Amino acid sequence: MLAFPTHAQEDGSMSETSNKTRLEHDCIGQMEVPANVYWGIHTQRAIGNFPVSGITDSQHPELIRAYATVKRACAIANEELGLIDPAKAEAIRAACLEIEAGKLADQFPVDVMQGGAGTSSNMNMNEVIANRALEIAGRQRGDYTYIHPNDDVNKSQSTNDTYPAACKLALIDAIGPLAESTKKLAKAFHDLADKHINDVTIGRTQLQDAVPMTYGQEFHAFATLLKSDLAAFDRVVPLLAQLNLGATAIGTGICADLRFRKSAIKHLAQITGLPVTAAPDPVAAMTDMGAYVATSAAIKSLAVHLKKAADDLRLLNSGPRCGFNDLNVPARQAGSSIMPAKVNPVIPECVNQCCFTIFGMDVTVNWAVAEGQLQLNAFDPVMVHELLTGMALLTHAMETFRVNCVEGIEINADLGRSYAQSSPSISAALNHYIGYEHAADIAAEAVHTGRTVREVAGERTDLPAEQLDEILDPIRLARGLGQTCREHQE
Amino acid sequence: MLAFPTHAQEDGSMSETSNKTRLEHDCIGQMEVPANVYWGIHTQRAIGNFPVSGITDSQHPELIRAYATVKRACAIANEELGLIDPAKAEAIRAACLEIEAGKLADQFPVDVMQGGAGTSSNMNMNEVIANRALEIAGRQRGDYTYIHPNDDVNKSQSTNDTYPAACKLALIDAIGPLAESTKKLAKAFHDLADKHINDVTIGRTQLQDAVPMTYGQEFHAFATLLKSDLAAFDRVVPLLAQLNLGATAIGTGICADLRFRKSAIKHLAQITGLPVTAAPDPVAAMTDMGAYVATSAAIKSLAVHLKKAADDLRLLNSGPRCGFNDLNVPARQAGSSIMPAKVNPVIPECVNQCCFTIFGMDVTVNWAVAEGQLQLNAFDPVMVHELLTGMALLTHAMETFRVNCVEGIEINADLGRSYAQSSPSISAALNHYIGYEHAADIAAEAVHTGRTVREVAGERTDLPAEQLDEILDPIRLARGLGQTCREHQE
Amino acid sequence: MLAFPTHAQEDGSMSETSNKTRLEHDCIGQMEVPANVYWGIHTQRAIGNFPVSGITDSQHPELIRAYATVKRACAIANEELGLIDPAKAEAIRAACLEIEAGKLADQFPVDVMQGGAGTSSNMNMNEVIANRALEIAGRQRGDYTYIHPNDDVNKSQSTNDTYPAACKLALIDAIGPLAESTKKLAKAFHDLADKHINDVTIGRTQLQDAVPMTYGQEFHAFATLLKSDLAAFDRVVPLLAQLNLGATAIGTGICADLRFRKSAIKHLAQITGLPVTAAPDPVAAMTDMGAYVATSAAIKSLAVHLKKAADDLRLLNSGPRCGFNDLNVPARQAGSSIMPAKVNPVIPECVNQCCFTIFGMDVTVNWAVAEGQLQLNAFDPVMVHELLTGMALLTHAMETFRVNCVEGIEINADLGRSYAQSSPSISAALNHYIGYEHAADIAAEAVHTGRTVREVAGERTDLPAEQLDEILDPIRLARGLGQTCREHQE
Amino acid sequence: MLAFPTHAQEDGSMSETSNKTRLEHDCIGQMEVPANVYWGIHTQRAIGNFPVSGITDSQHPELIRAYATVKRACAIANEELGLIDPAKAEAIRAACLEIEAGKLADQFPVDVMQGGAGTSSNMNMNEVIANRALEIAGRQRGDYTYIHPNDDVNKSQSTNDTYPAACKLALIDAIGPLAESTKKLAKAFHDLADKHINDVTIGRTQLQDAVPMTYGQEFHAFATLLKSDLAAFDRVVPLLAQLNLGATAIGTGICADLRFRKSAIKHLAQITGLPVTAAPDPVAAMTDMGAYVATSAAIKSLAVHLKKAADDLRLLNSGPRCGFNDLNVPARQAGSSIMPAKVNPVIPECVNQCCFTIFGMDVTVNWAVAEGQLQLNAFDPVMVHELLTGMALLTHAMETFRVNCVEGIEINADLGRSYAQSSPSISAALNHYIGYEHAADIAAEAVHTGRTVREVAGERTDLPAEQLDEILDPIRLARGLGQTCREHQE
Repeated sequence: MLAFPTHAQEDGSMSETSNKTRLEHDCIGQMEVPANVYWGIHTQRAIGNFPVSGITDSQHPELIRAYATVKRACAIANEELGLIDPAKAEAIRAACLEIEAGKLADQFPVDVMQGGAGTSSNMNMNEVIANRALEIAGRQRGDYTYIHPNDDVNKSQSTNDTYPAACKLALIDAIGPLAESTKKLAKAFHDLADKHINDVTIGRTQLQDAVPMTYGQEFHAFATLLKSDLAAFDRVVPLLAQLNLGATAIGTGICADLRFRKSAIKHLAQITGLPVTAAPDPVAAMTDMGAYVATSAAIKSLAVHLKKAADDLRLLNSGPRCGFNDLNVPARQAGSSIMPAKVNPVIPECVNQCCFTIFGMDVTVNWAVAEGQLQLNAFDPVMVHELLTGMALLTHAMETFRVNCVEGIEINADLGRSYAQSSPSISAALNHYIGYEHAADIAAEAVHTGRTVREVAGERTDLPAEQLDEILDPIRLARGLGQTCREHQE
Repeated sequence: MLAFPTHAQEDGSMSETSNKTRLEHDCIGQMEVPANVYWGIHTQRAIGNFPVSGITDSQHPELIRAYATVKRACAIANEELGLIDPAKAEAIRAACLEIEAGKLADQFPVDVMQGGAGTSSNMNMNEVIANRALEIAGRQRGDYTYIHPNDDVNKSQSTNDTYPAACKLALIDAIGPLAESTKKLAKAFHDLADKHINDVTIGRTQLQDAVPMTYGQEFHAFATLLKSDLAAFDRVVPLLAQLNLGATAIGTGICADLRFRKSAIKHLAQITGLPVTAAPDPVAAMTDMGAYVATSAAIKSLAVHLKKAADDLRLLNSGPRCGFNDLNVPARQAGSSIMPAKVNPVIPECVNQCCFTIFGMDVTVNWAVAEGQLQLNAFDPVMVHELLTGMALLTHAMETFRVNCVEGIEINADLGRSYAQSSPSISAALNHYIGYEHAADIAAEAVHTGRTVREVAGERTDLPAEQLDEILDPIRLARGLGQTCREHQE
Repeated sequence: MLAFPTHAQEDGSMSETSNKTRLEHDCIGQMEVPANVYWGIHTQRAIGNFPVSGITDSQHPELIRAYATVKRACAIANEELGLIDPAKAEAIRAACLEIEAGKLADQFPVDVMQGGAGTSSNMNMNEVIANRALEIAGRQRGDYTYIHPNDDVNKSQSTNDTYPAACKLALIDAIGPLAESTKKLAKAFHDLADKHINDVTIGRTQLQDAVPMTYGQEFHAFATLLKSDLAAFDRVVPLLAQLNLGATAIGTGICADLRFRKSAIKHLAQITGLPVTAAPDPVAAMTDMGAYVATSAAIKSLAVHLKKAADDLRLLNSGPRCGFNDLNVPARQAGSSIMPAKVNPVIPECVNQCCFTIFGMDVTVNWAVAEGQLQLNAFDPVMVHELLTGMALLTHAMETFRVNCVEGIEINADLGRSYAQSSPSISAALNHYIGYEHAADIAAEAVHTGRTVREVAGERTDLPAEQLDEILDPIRLARGLGQTCREHQE
Repeated sequence: MLAFPTHAQEDGSMSETSNKTRLEHDCIGQMEVPANVYWGIHTQRAIGNFPVSGITDSQHPELIRAYATVKRACAIANEELGLIDPAKAEAIRAACLEIEAGKLADQFPVDVMQGGAGTSSNMNMNEVIANRALEIAGRQRGDYTYIHPNDDVNKSQSTNDTYPAACKLALIDAIGPLAESTKKLAKAFHDLADKHINDVTIGRTQLQDAVPMTYGQEFHAFATLLKSDLAAFDRVVPLLAQLNLGATAIGTGICADLRFRKSAIKHLAQITGLPVTAAPDPVAAMTDMGAYVATSAAIKSLAVHLKKAADDLRLLNSGPRCGFNDLNVPARQAGSSIMPAKVNPVIPECVNQCCFTIFGMDVTVNWAVAEGQLQLNAFDPVMVHELLTGMALLTHAMETFRVNCVEGIEINADLGRSYAQSSPSISAALNHYIGYEHAADIAAEAVHTGRTVREVAGERTDLPAEQLDEILDPIRLARGLGQTCREHQE
């Protein structure tokens, strides 16, 4: 009756497979689970409980991989502390490694908007690991007396400490391709800048003609902004790498050996190579969402910078006859179903929309992080879903931005130079010689008469023509080589 | 290199099919298109341009259906006005009808975050209709000299007038199941209320014990809030049904016969049965996003009400020993991987997260609607994607809320009654007889001594026991049958 | 020690007045209150409790007036029902009338961000009315045995029903000047449009040259958008006018005569002339924030339209040499501290920032409306503060927008006409005669050769020069008088 | 006609002073300025242009002070480089010092929502400094031939480099009291925690009874969260201290000596003692709003933590009879106008509302930072206004939270202990001995029979009574001293 029928129904029937099932039970009662899946009753119930977004954990492979890594580190710690039989631990570790390698990727069918603070994801992972470990150990799936999802796989753990750990590692993982795309886009802007380091154009402030700059400076600025985002990602990683393993249910570590925390963190750091640390106050860490706020802010800051580049390119590309026309983004497709030959900046527009999505994401994350109650915030699932989705979206958006737009930008160098010379605001360069007020008169006359500042200044000042040419030379102005520079070189 | 390879690649190759292609051209140049698809070059380019979200137009069937309906109405208008050959019009209409019936549903592979203000969606629709119409007319796909995607299917139209029309009709369409789920959830709350119309409990304000009410009143209020949302949906429909067909590119109606606007609107109203009207100022309508703002606000208001119900149920379900425990939501799954028998309110938590998503959606929509420039807002695609996604999410969330939670709620009637009697605030009922300040003293003493107001009042007032029993009777208080009522009946 | 010392300190001392005090008490204990103020102990405590924003209820005169009106209507209802002594009721009514007339405006010193769901505002109002009524009745302030703030002024009422009523009436009141400013701004745009009804310019979509329109059409669209906001305000009023008087604490009407609800609503409708109605489900109405959501959305929609106008004007004003330069907004101040004669569009920029504030306001309101718990939402104070502040901000922003910008806009008619003729996209007008693809070729050639479509079409089509002149006449295109029009007139 | 008449009207008249004026001029024309003010024509025009919020720059003393500091550092740099006459520089420095000391605080009457990217604030500062410096130098106000606001005070500067510098220094300044209040609140929670380090209560996850913890752990967590915000503030300071002096109009440094940048930064660092650095890419820095995004995120993170504390305290304070009742926040005022003796958690509610304001602030800042165009973002004014207002709001909110709430919290230790023993979830402590599933059976039986886990376990397991007592001892569980701990100590 509910939407999004997955191939495994709550009643255990599977359309495309045989109808064989195994019977499992939990504290609620018992239920048939398809015989050919690795998940168990907890997962099966969750499939029926949360058919809301149609998007499953499987669609966040970083999360699946990270969770398996967390489980493997915990299994090693449990074995190290003698809390679990080595043979069982080995089977569990082997199952985790398979999942980390991308196997069983379709065995995580729970909706990403699941209630329960990630319990269903954890139990799904516990069940899949247990059943795969049972197979590895030569047993039947469902033979939980040998390897139990809770008593063995989840040993010394709780959803409340392992799920956030997996979420945070998944976010660090997702920073990888995001940063890679950011770097490549920054490089594309940098290359474009280098190519046009001597091509002068007009700088505009408040959309009004201001003073000369080079296209190189303009494009280089986009690269610089993106590089600042890379630095921001770096600042976020240690926050995300502070984990709470061993805190179990509410931070007090109930059900966990006191030595487990240290051991699990140590092994997780070794496995991942990340600066994983243990949160100093486990009770506080249980509800602290600061790392998510910071991550969301870093992604938002990137989106602000991407929006700026997209907006500016759309402005600079405006025209061809009735706009700025400083440059042309590549024609990627016909722009209009009725206006022939109209070509629109569709790639930057796509980027813009991705940024709007990120701005909404930040608000959704704000809601989720601020709605925890007492010893738990139950809303990690929507946070990690939003953040992973947003990061993937920007990763892809930067790829198409780079390949289909930035790398193909052509400037209109002659027009740029003409703009640089015609702006009344370059009279600012005369301030030093004749004062702001006299310079203002010249600028005003230039505006009203339609002439250039150079032309008016030739008539209205005593400065020699050669000196005026130098003072008002756009490329010198773009490089900050104004009069005062010359002075202090003297 | 880019993400989300769809089965039809930009280079025209198709992995799972034969490599046959047809060659098409546009104002940019020419390109191979898979022979076995109905789309053409414009769609093919768009596939390569926007690989960002991995979600395609096909995943919004309301949008596809609505767009085909718009195209059909336009074809009828064109035929009526003699602007297109009747035989061609008939083939076009037939193709539209097929799409409206759900056929060719996989032929809309453009990413929902596409740039271009919907041009790719429009051209995709024009191409699929043209090629299917060509088949119906016994021609080859690609034989655009007979039926041309632009000159014939898009006749008298532009993306800028038809795409928003399709988006708005799709939103109206999506209101259907949303309203249906809202009604059913309201009914579930209403039924629950009716069942408990005489079961008294405590009302709480600012989380402090206030005065008695019935469970019936509490649940009925949830139903009432949802009904107010149904009314809000009704207010939104006329805004969404105000369309701009015939306005073409910027509202001036270039390329469209002056009579087309009226004819197309008339036929669209007839086909859909909706109160479709023509926007009075086509130039303004081209950029007016007011209908989207209003739609988003209506969805947000529903989410506010759902969040309230979910929050309240989670509070009332708190316990079992150390919380409110006024009621129990059904146990849907084991609540903890380590705390045995703990059952959590996972369904309301899922609902909460859906609401957070909607709050972010509203912000994303705010961004998109406020970033139009001059004669167009290019960001309809992200708006309609967000709104349709949000509406589907709440539709499904209400279904699971109803089926898996509300319908199974059990109240703890004895505890509720005990609460109602123990609240110090029921001393308010004494205000009329002994004044606010004396009543306050009695309440304070009740708090400090751990007794009930009834007990203290028996000692500290001159009111007869029988009258006190009546004054402080919880069910009478819940029904507003305080002392003053009795008075004015005398 | 805390910030924002008001002239009346928590300890009762008043710096600029005598140190005389009166002693009052409440359920917490007793406290000195300055003798020369009208408020009492509840207000005095609140001053000390909420020194957070430094903004007091007094700074929202609409709220003070509306609350006094509500109290007056309740006093009349109480008298009508025989619940209060007529002499007392008369004194209370007289005190209310004074406050409604703007007297005692400085007697509401509680911070707008007060906790307590408005209880402090209500008690402040009760106390001021009681003390002023006592004076009117020839008694001493503080002589509450004669007229008591709770037992008399607050008779049949609670904070939870009267405060939201006052808030909603205050919002309706604030819609007055907001709508007035909206109308005047719409008229300013309309007047400007009328003046330029025949001045042709280019329409731009996605910032690319599109097809001709008139300045008149462009400005008229701004007026149309604003008019749609006026209609939205009208839709909001009935939602705001649905009040919950008589519902008292939680909606059950405890402490209120059953007849009170009807009577109070009736008198409030008579006094205000507004379509005041009683909420059908008082328990639901107690927590329903739908009217605030709708009001906030209507204000946001206005802000979206204002932002659009401000953005567009800034774009159209860009230049003077290197931008669009379609028009000039009035020079209001020097634009740069170093670039002489640079004049910036400072008024639209101011408007933009006001709109950003509104977008944040909408999110704050979203938070407040969605955080109610059980039988009350305690966060009305921040809602009404945000909404009243936002409405005032836009009211003022529209005034300066109109007076200091819109009314002084000058268009550059010659440039506009030149733009209209030069846009390649006007080849769309040829589609009907030569087909989209041929028209596209002509447009492309025009772009590449720097000529006009008219020039290229003269060479590349067989159409007679006279017909081409007519087909491509910008003013005809702006008016939708394309070829097809001529046809169907034949 | 416009709102917010300030004491100095646009027409130059001043109600409370004499009507004397001086005549000033700018590139727009000339205007009378009140003779007795220090500002000049640019300020006077701005007063008339932006009467929108009624809040002036004067209401942000941090901004005024910081701007004067920036101007002083620039004057020193100009003097050091020989760009300005030492006597003039001395007068300018002296004027700056006075303003930094809080003098002339009422001379900054421009609305905080001003358009113009801060140009009015800069010119206001230039004019006040110039006129005060003229007085110091024994000249008349307005004698700009001696000291000119632009040519001298603004020497080597632009609004676009100095205004953001002042804004960022103002934000660093405002972090001071914010951090101080944060520290004090953290200490208050820490002290409360220390007092209750041995008082056991129940931890709740998803509002369901979970496992034991101490009140000390609960309160300590609040302190820990606040401390994490202090660390976040520290991370923000270097971002805010990266300034762009010498970049002038668009980053190219036009009108500034090339040596100025280094010198000004050096002197600003010396004066402020802050880690002031020069942005490496001045053109990028001109539009980079990353520091504002990060600052807003840090404030938001604090608000998230404050909301959590306020929410939790309201929950734990719920009751007194029908709620959690783990603790009591101090009674600060009567809670209801009709329910006697009801005391509400008004201080946490006030804090909640302040947090909602911050969440809206973050969105407004998001808008402002993302709407820059080309070489400038003109919307710094609203950003800095929102951030400074938000920081002050939270500073004050934390003060009242601490003084009027946290410091007076009383716990209900007996109830807490009783809760800890009664929770079914403590059966988790048995998992290790009897397995998750058997433990679950015991928990379920405890729930259904209304007994404690200890009672049921005594009957249903073979574990000796003494061991069971130890295993289920709440204080041992709260400290993580479960069975496994004992084991590994053996």
